[in-house]
Amino acid sequence: MSLNTPFLLNAWYAAAWDYEVGDKPLARMLLGTRVALYRRGDGEYAALEDRCAHRLVPLSCGRVEGDTLECAYHGLRFDAAGQCVTNPHGPIPTAARVKSFAARQRHGMVWIWLGDAALADDGAIPDFGFMDDDALNARRIRGHMHTRAGYTLMADNILDLGHIEFLHGGTLGTEAVRKAPTQVREEGDSIIVEREIENEILPEFMSREYGCVGLPVRRLLSVRWQAPANLKITISVAPMGGEAETRSNYSCHLMTPETLTTTHYFWANTRLGNPSEALDAAKRRGLESVFSQEDKPIVEAQQKNIDVDGPDAAPPALLTVDRGIVRSRRRLNDLLKQASGAARVS
Amino acid sequence: MSLNTPFLLNAWYAAAWDYEVGDKPLARMLLGTRVALYRRGDGEYAALEDRCAHRLVPLSCGRVEGDTLECAYHGLRFDAAGQCVTNPHGPIPTAARVKSFAARQRHGMVWIWLGDAALADDGAIPDFGFMDDDALNARRIRGHMHTRAGYTLMADNILDLGHIEFLHGGTLGTEAVRKAPTQVREEGDSIIVEREIENEILPEFMSREYGCVGLPVRRLLSVRWQAPANLKITISVAPMGGEAETRSNYSCHLMTPETLTTTHYFWANTRLGNPSEALDAAKRRGLESVFSQEDKPIVEAQQKNIDVDGPDAAPPALLTVDRGIVRSRRRLNDLLKQASGAARVS
Amino acid sequence: MSLNTPFLLNAWYAAAWDYEVGDKPLARMLLGTRVALYRRGDGEYAALEDRCAHRLVPLSCGRVEGDTLECAYHGLRFDAAGQCVTNPHGPIPTAARVKSFAARQRHGMVWIWLGDAALADDGAIPDFGFMDDDALNARRIRGHMHTRAGYTLMADNILDLGHIEFLHGGTLGTEAVRKAPTQVREEGDSIIVEREIENEILPEFMSREYGCVGLPVRRLLSVRWQAPANLKITISVAPMGGEAETRSNYSCHLMTPETLTTTHYFWANTRLGNPSEALDAAKRRGLESVFSQEDKPIVEAQQKNIDVDGPDAAPPALLTVDRGIVRSRRRLNDLLKQASGAARVS
Ligand code: FES
Ligand code: FES
Ligand code: FES
Repeated sequence: MSLNTPFLLNAWYAAAWDYEVGDKPLARMLLGTRVALYRRGDGEYAALEDRCAHRLVPLSCGRVEGDTLECAYHGLRFDAAGQCVTNPHGPIPTAARVKSFAARQRHGMVWIWLGDAALADDGAIPDFGFMDDDALNARRIRGHMHTRAGYTLMADNILDLGHIEFLHGGTLGTEAVRKAPTQVREEGDSIIVEREIENEILPEFMSREYGCVGLPVRRLLSVRWQAPANLKITISVAPMGGEAETRSNYSCHLMTPETLTTTHYFWANTRLGNPSEALDAAKRRGLESVFSQEDKPIVEAQQKNIDVDGPDAAPPALLTVDRGIVRSRRRLNDLLKQASGAARVS
Repeated sequence: MSLNTPFLLNAWYAAAWDYEVGDKPLARMLLGTRVALYRRGDGEYAALEDRCAHRLVPLSCGRVEGDTLECAYHGLRFDAAGQCVTNPHGPIPTAARVKSFAARQRHGMVWIWLGDAALADDGAIPDFGFMDDDALNARRIRGHMHTRAGYTLMADNILDLGHIEFLHGGTLGTEAVRKAPTQVREEGDSIIVEREIENEILPEFMSREYGCVGLPVRRLLSVRWQAPANLKITISVAPMGGEAETRSNYSCHLMTPETLTTTHYFWANTRLGNPSEALDAAKRRGLESVFSQEDKPIVEAQQKNIDVDGPDAAPPALLTVDRGIVRSRRRLNDLLKQASGAARVS
Repeated sequence: MSLNTPFLLNAWYAAAWDYEVGDKPLARMLLGTRVALYRRGDGEYAALEDRCAHRLVPLSCGRVEGDTLECAYHGLRFDAAGQCVTNPHGPIPTAARVKSFAARQRHGMVWIWLGDAALADDGAIPDFGFMDDDALNARRIRGHMHTRAGYTLMADNILDLGHIEFLHGGTLGTEAVRKAPTQVREEGDSIIVEREIENEILPEFMSREYGCVGLPVRRLLSVRWQAPANLKITISVAPMGGEAETRSNYSCHLMTPETLTTTHYFWANTRLGNPSEALDAAKRRGLESVFSQEDKPIVEAQQKNIDVDGPDAAPPALLTVDRGIVRSRRRLNDLLKQASGAARVS
């Protein structure tokens, strides 16, 4: 639990929300690799190593020309397969090619596969159907936050339902949470952690969204983890003992390693209720401030302590609330072992 | 003189002024060790390793509960001995304990012993009685300044009475200082450096405090060094040739290594004269600005040059004004050699 | 082309414009060496290692006293040969001397020789006569810009006439540039790259200076490189097919390594036209903004990619426009090989 986790290379990772890759290429480090993401003229996304084959400047400094990326320095153009297809200064040298990576758009997200492209199976892109725009008659709100902590610490923090009443005591937690037991189970490639809270009076900002202001409810928190670090939270709320409808909120928490100790955190959340830019903005502010003021400082401090400890750290103590985390780490370690040569520390 | 000095572990160090450790725990790196300082319900101070035994987040992010420190992440509580005494999620795991360090309050300062706790002798806390609030019918002013220079360079700078007329030529120095000889002697565990200045007209801000505006005085500067780097300066001023009373100002300069090349500098000074918040603030400003504008840039630049030099540095030249420094370094080196295994470079 | 280039020690480098070294000494790292530059009372420039022989503080923190530099900490004075000539505290210790370096003023520039002083031949200072104030009845404008890229990358960028129409497409480039061929030749110790552009309508800000607004011109760009990285650009403009006079603009681009991966870039440019502070300032703004907004980000990004690549980088592709760069690198490598022991990586 204490060491920094290497990367599973042969897997799909969230690379960028579609709105982040517009007319201009986007430079992003993913799994320690410099990537230039761009949108081709035909609407498909492409991902090249962000290092021109000529004099090494980042291709992301250049501009999109049709289906190619043109280098800013001397105008070489590279296609989505990384082949130089235009040299304005003369014939195309054999060495004029760069690495390319498989990239797919699904659920509003550009997914990338940095390992062996021959193994990049579209069917393996994790299912986050609720992120499709109007899948749920609810408002989708999305964001990207950079965090100075490794991707497994970030995933642990989402899987960890035992910290709500402490770290979020003033925002998301209530007295009822303390009494709620936590369950862990496995379903196919997923680890699922659930906590069912009975007879809870939700904080007002939440109860307003679920339409249960002042009413005692049953709240089910359900977190699904899939390797390497893609998570979905479902929150289902229903008034206690009544026949009233259960209302559910879905969110994704996609953790993509930037480096061994920093993470791109992509999130999306469905807001229940009518269309309203003001309510969208308020919900975004609420979500971002809980993360950035409560989770992020703790997880970054945890990472700093891991770095100070180094490899000789005293082994940490485990609590019962860690069961989901322990299982997800074991699953990930098995995949890393299977990948053997494909895993890499950079 | 040129290399960074390792730490003497079995010694008391200034950790924090009492006013720095209030209702909230204080995170402070001391001798390369992450420490969470807190004040227990019973008024005693405690010091724990700042790394929760559960998932490694700093305990200083949490809060004081009675005599314990509660972790911010999942609510484990640790007592002053580092033992986990409360786990809200189930039984207390055996591994749920953290390192603790001896901490004592004396003279308004929280002292810490980071080495072998069995050797932590209260009698060895250095005597700075003047720092007790009303010991001298004078105003005590205190501060803490962080400096990017090793603790021995910081101590050298205080012991070094040969720089006043140069580095502080425009503030603390006068023409008379140039002619004053410097004496060095040893007394028990102390090195004492003294410089007696005759027939000096003090700068106005000083002469006002000593009540000798415009009068020629005799000023005795006396610096006492004790290992590892705790210093006291006594400045005694009396009108020349008269029977008039000598007035003395006391100050402490406690240098606690943060790392090998950075230091916590704690200082206290007695201001002569009547109670006055305005005069207190003026004196604090004066002291802090001389340090931060004159000493600190020089000592930090010295440290930078030492770092650039590395271990192959040409040996520096020694002057007669360095005698006190040379003796204090020799004394400290002897203690480090005796400590052998207890000394450590981190 | 991809690895960081070591330094040629036995060579003159631009250290500072004369206006940068006034009443106060100047601290500057040159070729990884800490240098204190100062102007002696007799008007000559001197260069000492920026590390007092006593307690290692930078001599540049001190002040000029006649022909000597006085240390800020305890007042030792060192002459231009590095010998301590005054110790206010007693006799001068044998060890009280610091390294000194040959320094010369020529063409408004202070040149430094950091290698073997016995080899420092004044005749080897490169000729930049146009930089003498009134050599050309034109306005000389000068500047110094710090860049996080190695000195050879900086030199490459000036020698590289193939990037104008791309990187500077919106500022210095025109359609006519794309069709102009590039020639490379060697002349003595110089590599010369030229590009002759026919029938060009210059951007307005340029044509105004050359007095050819709206007229098609022939523009000859000529870059001269001399080891280690001193370059001169001559731009000659004449109206097409006429008898009208050719007007020329001269500029120097002197690249002095600060470290292996950072560079002091000194430039001077002659502005054609009448004296006018407003026009001088406008030209400076124009030159600095093209460099800092177009070249600098690209060259720094190139350096970053080189650092990320490390020594195992895939070899870059070469284009025909790189011929001048390739020859200059070969010339420099030959000199580095000849220097063998005198070359050094720091
Ligand atoms: S660096 Fe990309 S084209 Fe030259
Ligand atoms: S990290 Fe401290 S209680 Fe979990
Ligand atoms: S450090 Fe330069 S004179 Fe002492």
